Amino acid sequence: MLEICAKLQHTTKMKKHNYSAGPCILPQEVFEKSAQAILNFNNSDLSLLEISHRSKDFVAVMEEARALVLELLGLENKGYQALFLHGGASMQFLMTPYNLMKSDGKAAYLDTGTWANNAIKEAKHFGETLIVGSSKEANYNFIPKNIEIPSDANYFHCTSNNTIFGTQMKSFPKTNVPLVCDMSSDIFSRTLDFSQFDLIYAGAQKNMGPAGATLVVVKEEILGKTGRYIPSMLDYEKHIKAESMYNTPPVFPIYASLLTLQWLKKLGGIAAIEKINEQKAQLLYTEIDRNPLFKGTAVTEDRSNMNATFVLTDESLTEKFDTMWKAAGISGLTGHRSVGGYRASMYNALPLESVEALVNVMKELEKKCSVISI
Amino acid sequence: MLEICAKLQHTTKMKKHNYSAGPCILPQEVFEKSAQAILNFNNSDLSLLEISHRSKDFVAVMEEARALVLELLGLENKGYQALFLHGGASMQFLMTPYNLMKSDGKAAYLDTGTWANNAIKEAKHFGETLIVGSSKEANYNFIPKNIEIPSDANYFHCTSNNTIFGTQMKSFPKTNVPLVCDMSSDIFSRTLDFSQFDLIYAGAQKNMGPAGATLVVVKEEILGKTGRYIPSMLDYEKHIKAESMYNTPPVFPIYASLLTLQWLKKLGGIAAIEKINEQKAQLLYTEIDRNPLFKGTAVTEDRSNMNATFVLTDESLTEKFDTMWKAAGISGLTGHRSVGGYRASMYNALPLESVEALVNVMKELEKKCSVISI
Repeated sequence: MLEICAKLQHTTKMKKHNYSAGPCILPQEVFEKSAQAILNFNNSDLSLLEISHRSKDFVAVMEEARALVLELLGLENKGYQALFLHGGASMQFLMTPYNLMKSDGKAAYLDTGTWANNAIKEAKHFGETLIVGSSKEANYNFIPKNIEIPSDANYFHCTSNNTIFGTQMKSFPKTNVPLVCDMSSDIFSRTLDFSQFDLIYAGAQKNMGPAGATLVVVKEEILGKTGRYIPSMLDYEKHIKAESMYNTPPVFPIYASLLTLQWLKKLGGIAAIEKINEQKAQLLYTEIDRNPLFKGTAVTEDRSNMNATFVLTDESLTEKFDTMWKAAGISGLTGHRSVGGYRASMYNALPLESVEALVNVMKELEKKCSVISI
Repeated sequence: MLEICAKLQHTTKMKKHNYSAGPCILPQEVFEKSAQAILNFNNSDLSLLEISHRSKDFVAVMEEARALVLELLGLENKGYQALFLHGGASMQFLMTPYNLMKSDGKAAYLDTGTWANNAIKEAKHFGETLIVGSSKEANYNFIPKNIEIPSDANYFHCTSNNTIFGTQMKSFPKTNVPLVCDMSSDIFSRTLDFSQFDLIYAGAQKNMGPAGATLVVVKEEILGKTGRYIPSMLDYEKHIKAESMYNTPPVFPIYASLLTLQWLKKLGGIAAIEKINEQKAQLLYTEIDRNPLFKGTAVTEDRSNMNATFVLTDESLTEKFDTMWKAAGISGLTGHRSVGGYRASMYNALPLESVEALVNVMKELEKKCSVISI
């Protein structure tokens, strides 16, 4: 033990304000508990990394994680199954049509950004893929509204939050076809009637855990209807039957996800975190709108509470601003190359103080510039 | 820091002899260094779990891991690429035919166990799948020899080590078709001319790291020849082009794999570990053959140096033996239900002392029984 403590002696409480778009900040207790589990899991004198996934202790982790997902989303006893799979959300771009598009069928997609577009590309190889709305021409700075979904589509697919472009769907179309939603970057961040969705998926590495696991929440009754052969590893029904252990699951990412879900539940669940997320987003967007040196890039009504995208009104201030936020301990604020400027990712685990730190730097920049002007 | 040390205070050096078949024992330094990286990665004051996979620090991890794989296998500058992918070896059962079987082609498979069989099942949905040898009738207790591989097959697929049945291929057929090998449970354990293979894959969770990453080593020249559409996430060429970051990779499992590969290199590489593995296997098999209370289940010449499968000659001793090995701090020795009895998995990180501990228990059982007989 002394040896391990000596090795960890440079560890201090994290002081960075981490705005990384994902993988991203997680609760400090998730880091501490998951590090502990690697050294000694459940006082078994074994590491979490060296135990069988079929061991009693890990089966309990998987069961609790799957149940907690449904509990937090309010989907218990409503015919849904939660799965923790490999492959990232990108694998779901493929698994969605494999599992839901009939061999002579068609599907409807909403094109709201890079990831929505990647989902569309995969679906096109399975059958007719209708783009029922797109904001591509406006560099995806808004969410298309009043879309029409053909009633004979096998499903409708949308992306609830567009990480790169800073837009977020505030409501979802009413439709008689199965509603599929990629919630990778805003799951567990806001209250919604989750029972309006038939399939929800999300890469873990934003609000749920570290990279390497993917959450799938699926209403069982929509499965088994395509008449198409589905390879075993891509078949939701096979994964459900195997209780999310069809093959060796990504043990560590799932355990760290469970710790994050437990943290969220202790905090008061989605309703509690939603309030904090709204507070953070309001604080930042208010400053973006007030401060003449900054401008938001997304249409106001569609702004994301998770990823705020903004630019400097005067690009020549870039070096000065970048130096200032870095000096304030802020990291990961540079915008995606598709939009430029800045992106402040305010996922669940980012504390309000981090947003205050950023807003202070924005105000400081304004003050410095007005001094120079005088 | 004090707080973290207090939380870790029950951590002691692992004392268990961990024979788990996978996920399995890894070097103690991998547990310590990976736990440290979760608390503070590279002294960045950020956790490994919260940094972008595109950050300089993680890109360096990925590059070093990919290069080290080729170095350890002796495959540098020979036209190979190493990839760390999602999905486990089971996903490779699907990716192999997707990437290598022509739309009107055929493939040859060797059926040596449960996993080989699962690979065959997936391939059958892509085209003609010839089983050129099988030991199924003998409950997979040997490796079929002198097999004939049709020269017009698109590839030949085999499983180098059969975890469940305790058999291992000691040599590989000479063939003019691409040679594909699932090395999940013996990669990095023995010297081989790895350049005889065109595609090697392995789930991380035996000799390479924790569950959640899969290694693929592929000779580039065999790709791009099928005339078949390959979904993006299943396309080796797309992953190669993206330098193994087509989507967010499983960050933690890859980092822990790098630590394990670094440990192996420091030890002297595959040649050094091979000697230790031979010593361990010889010690155990000698006892299995000598001790009248035990009997090996695999044919002697095909015995695996990784997984030794054996049974009690008198089943009524089961309870006594189980109590004894558990009391000696041994875990994970119960055999797979397909074979019964016991399975001692002696992966790279299992120390010789653990095998000595097991052999001592086996001798002790013999002594007790002979006392009872007297």
